[in-house]
Amino acid sequence: MQEVRRRNIFHRYSNNPILKPEDWPYPANAVFNPGAAIYEGETLLLVRVEDLRGFSHFTIARSKDGKTNWQIDPKPTLEPDKNIREEIWGIEDARIVWLENLKKYAITYVSHSMGGPQISLMLTEDFKNFDRLGPLLPPEDKDASLFPRCIGGLFMLIHRPIIRGEAHIWISCSPNLKHWGDHRILIPVRPGWWDAHRVGLGPPPIETPEGWLVIYHGVRVTASLSTYRLGIALLDLEEPWKIKCRSQEWVFGPKESYERIGDVPGVTFASGIVVDKDTGEFRLYYGAADSAVALATADMDELMAYIMSCI
Amino acid sequence: MQEVRRRNIFHRYSNNPILKPEDWPYPANAVFNPGAAIYEGETLLLVRVEDLRGFSHFTIARSKDGKTNWQIDPKPTLEPDKNIREEIWGIEDARIVWLENLKKYAITYVSHSMGGPQISLMLTEDFKNFDRLGPLLPPEDKDASLFPRCIGGLFMLIHRPIIRGEAHIWISCSPNLKHWGDHRILIPVRPGWWDAHRVGLGPPPIETPEGWLVIYHGVRVTASLSTYRLGIALLDLEEPWKIKCRSQEWVFGPKESYERIGDVPGVTFASGIVVDKDTGEFRLYYGAADSAVALATADMDELMAYIMSCI
Repeated sequence: MQEVRRRNIFHRYSNNPILKPEDWPYPANAVFNPGAAIYEGETLLLVRVEDLRGFSHFTIARSKDGKTNWQIDPKPTLEPDKNIREEIWGIEDARIVWLENLKKYAITYVSHSMGGPQISLMLTEDFKNFDRLGPLLPPEDKDASLFPRCIGGLFMLIHRPIIRGEAHIWISCSPNLKHWGDHRILIPVRPGWWDAHRVGLGPPPIETPEGWLVIYHGVRVTASLSTYRLGIALLDLEEPWKIKCRSQEWVFGPKESYERIGDVPGVTFASGIVVDKDTGEFRLYYGAADSAVALATADMDELMAYIMSCI
Repeated sequence: MQEVRRRNIFHRYSNNPILKPEDWPYPANAVFNPGAAIYEGETLLLVRVEDLRGFSHFTIARSKDGKTNWQIDPKPTLEPDKNIREEIWGIEDARIVWLENLKKYAITYVSHSMGGPQISLMLTEDFKNFDRLGPLLPPEDKDASLFPRCIGGLFMLIHRPIIRGEAHIWISCSPNLKHWGDHRILIPVRPGWWDAHRVGLGPPPIETPEGWLVIYHGVRVTASLSTYRLGIALLDLEEPWKIKCRSQEWVFGPKESYERIGDVPGVTFASGIVVDKDTGEFRLYYGAADSAVALATADMDELMAYIMSCI
């Protein structure tokens, strides 16, 4: 019965992948792992573009329905700043939230320094001018997002440091977006399970009446590849360092050829989510095999019914 | 000539080691790596005591002249709190500073959690009641001390995380001792040198007219052991993330039998320093071979002349 539930939660868009390197207006090796936001009535994706040197930057693609007719900026929207040591090997994997109390979009991303990947923050109001606030924590860290609102007067951050070779999801707090503390493990790996070897945040957490909905990736390392699948957790609304429930099963994973064949085969890496408040449709944007951008949809009620059944 | 200089900087106390396990009023495997402070006119050492299970706690030893007649607390002064997850495997390696703006002593120490060693903080006014503030940063981290005063309105912390297997000395800032940011590498390892494989802060930084004097340990890993020696750096007074100079040579290292023979042979691990303002005598307390506490003295003028010659 859980098998049936699981198969029904996320539905691949029929015209996947929605964005491919060959769609790009300039030479690109791969386009993947987009941040997503609704901006001026359109769906905006901040797409990670890997160039032919192997370094990544961001380019915006826009669509009115979030599915078709993507308008791609003719050149890179945001390139690594050569004067910033942390970005020397590129910028990657944006997560976007609207920070109501700052009236700005907050973009957490990976700045790839020589000392390893770090999580950095920038703010924007218009997706044209970006205010870089720099790295939040030392390397090695990835897969970070702010919560869209403060909790107990503090900004909250989900991130995924690698500590002594272990890759759990952590949560941290800050009074000012600059100094971080109260570092706690939030979602640990589960040895033996499908999410045994690494976990990491997918798209930003979404506030629901039942709690913060978190979609995360879990990795199992096999003899030939690392398989990136998705699981779900629900966090307490006012004490988000407490997990109310966590799916035992993965809910989405590599199946189609564009997920199984590519630069990094076997990867479904969700990083952007948009919720249509009228229809209750979740649109989940994900990187497929580190090569293209794909879309899966879910119904909010079904998704919540599933995760609540895990409690 | 530098050889001559180096030999003359630190002088071993003739009755070393000053504290040994057999001096202890209760069974102890090793006594080492003490924090040091002047309290009520006496030299107070907060000694790391490793018990026979292999876990460490702190016990105070006091002496009027800092050299002889040590009065050791008859039982552990401060044990790991069994209810604190981070301290499950013990507490280790205290560094003590007098925080003038809080009018309290700040003790940074290693709390040994199952997830690895972390740096934790406690405050005390009387070395009887200790107020635990918890871990400051995620594991794996050690060798931490606050600066004795705020700089630019921020508390400053030196620490030594291990990131991707690399063990450099970092510096971080906080407005409130709880949330930390502006994480920067301060003193990196030097491949090929005597401090090639790991570096870590020794005793707390000392303010001098020329800058913050930092004594640190550097580790070279050889086929049979890891040799812990001491080097010196001078940091800018108001921008302590800037190094004014760093000794090329090590200035102190294992030589005597109590430094070369013990639970961890080849270790001179300085963690406490006391300055006699009248005589200009530095008293450096160090763990010898992770087994006993030893003392070396230096003349402030000679030490400063040496480090200034490195600029």
